[in-house]
Amino acid sequence: MERITLAHGDGGELAHKLITDVFVSMFHNDHYAKFDSATLTWGAHELAVTTDSFVVKPLFFPGGNIGKLAVAGTINDLAVVGAVPKVLTCGFIIEEGFSIRDLKTIVQSMAEEAKKVNVTIVAGDTKVVERGSADGLYINTTGIGVVSRPLDREICEGDSVIVSGSVGDHGVAILVARGELGLVSTVESDCTTLYPLISKALKASNHIRLMRDPTRGGLATTLVEICEDFGVTIELEEDRIPIKKEVEGACELLGFDPLYLANEGKVVMIVPKEDEQTILDVLRSQPEGKDAAVIGTVRATNKGQLLLRTPLGTTRRLYRLTGLMLPRIC
Amino acid sequence: MERITLAHGDGGELAHKLITDVFVSMFHNDHYAKFDSATLTWGAHELAVTTDSFVVKPLFFPGGNIGKLAVAGTINDLAVVGAVPKVLTCGFIIEEGFSIRDLKTIVQSMAEEAKKVNVTIVAGDTKVVERGSADGLYINTTGIGVVSRPLDREICEGDSVIVSGSVGDHGVAILVARGELGLVSTVESDCTTLYPLISKALKASNHIRLMRDPTRGGLATTLVEICEDFGVTIELEEDRIPIKKEVEGACELLGFDPLYLANEGKVVMIVPKEDEQTILDVLRSQPEGKDAAVIGTVRATNKGQLLLRTPLGTTRRLYRLTGLMLPRIC
Repeated sequence: MERITLAHGDGGELAHKLITDVFVSMFHNDHYAKFDSATLTWGAHELAVTTDSFVVKPLFFPGGNIGKLAVAGTINDLAVVGAVPKVLTCGFIIEEGFSIRDLKTIVQSMAEEAKKVNVTIVAGDTKVVERGSADGLYINTTGIGVVSRPLDREICEGDSVIVSGSVGDHGVAILVARGELGLVSTVESDCTTLYPLISKALKASNHIRLMRDPTRGGLATTLVEICEDFGVTIELEEDRIPIKKEVEGACELLGFDPLYLANEGKVVMIVPKEDEQTILDVLRSQPEGKDAAVIGTVRATNKGQLLLRTPLGTTRRLYRLTGLMLPRIC
Repeated sequence: MERITLAHGDGGELAHKLITDVFVSMFHNDHYAKFDSATLTWGAHELAVTTDSFVVKPLFFPGGNIGKLAVAGTINDLAVVGAVPKVLTCGFIIEEGFSIRDLKTIVQSMAEEAKKVNVTIVAGDTKVVERGSADGLYINTTGIGVVSRPLDREICEGDSVIVSGSVGDHGVAILVARGELGLVSTVESDCTTLYPLISKALKASNHIRLMRDPTRGGLATTLVEICEDFGVTIELEEDRIPIKKEVEGACELLGFDPLYLANEGKVVMIVPKEDEQTILDVLRSQPEGKDAAVIGTVRATNKGQLLLRTPLGTTRRLYRLTGLMLPRIC
């Protein structure tokens, strides 16, 4: 009998297959190809709706905790479709024996993160399961926003690919926080609400084609999905991708590729070449975007491949995350 | 250190305290006193938003499974505030090793239940946790609906309290399905989508004051909350409350009170005395409402007490569920 494996949860190839085979096909919502968010026409408004469950382990990590992550993550999913985040709901599944003090700390972080962007938490639910039936605490957040200006999603040859900062920080922070690797590092998770940064970029340019936040599966998997969904071929320049020295060091030691590690405070944008500098300037003017960089170019609009050009001048194709076991990263 | 106990999850007194102390106070949404659903003004529309996590054990039970329950439960939460359910999101937390065939069966039930009332599942999320970190499968569903006609919520002395059918069926079905009680019974869960029934009642009467679905904590806890929230005193007539013989029998054996057992396909309505018969007729014309009954009367609008008049003519006050350990019921 086919069974769920941890690799079904890492945001890569198997997760993609599970979502396509089970959820998208049974719910018959094929036109919502990207199952993790949707926009709906609602009277005069275009609403964006997204949901995420958070099962990060450990619950507290350098740079944040599960609560901050749950609020920021869902707000970011709304922000990248060009929506103004308005309200959140949250569902808590709590393990018997969990400390109420820790719960209060986590809920406080959620309230603070939501307040930063004037998002109201309008409904919630708590369930308690027996000791051993959950790993402390799981949180689901669902977000609703209003799409103020839909992205045009018309990607053209020559468009630039921008990332708002260094990649892999969240992944390494979580791996180190797990304490299983005998690794010490000062890398903090980048976990933060990107709406303020994104709204400034949207004000500066009317032509941002597409945005995504490269969470599970990392920058590479996110870009592979864009390439496949839109049929475009993107060539990344390896030496332009910002990666912190410490993240690079940890990845070398552990055998991970930072392009596949989760980020929780970064956005990837596809923008017209002529708007590239304006957008870079806006991003770099904010602390969350100070390391923003142009990392690649749209080379063709018909093949759907993600390519990586190395500093040696060779080019290789990148695929979805596959086989790497990084569950419970968000 | 204060810790979470199973009683924090049974929908009774401790759950009420946890929600008030932690969530409502920290999220500063005191005006959403009933934390499990909210209505929002959105342009010309009044939207209803609600969220629920489902952790029922076992996942399959007579009359349904966790998927049917998750869709019906959230649709019912929208229906009882007078909303037309429109879209659902769902978040899955799946334990490593879970059977993909069972997952497909569950997702299929969700699709069928949603289709009955033309609800679209617009966004989803899957996370996988290690073996032993979840109990098979947890599902969160969040629902959005449009409030077509807000309930007036002006409860008056003399109003009638109606329940749409027998109480305690879901609770007993789950307890029996757990197989720990050495009890055999043919009671099925009443788990179903109430929107069709409720919309017919709303068409028949313009004056339904208030509706609730008496899930965790049962009929008694739900009515205690109404009495407290609106300051009204309700007197129930014990011998008018429909309870199946088998449910009564199981409760006697196990020492449970059916008024505190969960229901997943029943609605409680407070209606003007003069509309009582019209509404009863409509409810009884549908299979889900065939056992509908008037079970009590609003006696005063200033005390906030729930009273039970017994067949012997004595009256006693009922309180929230407290101390009974019935977690994982939904």
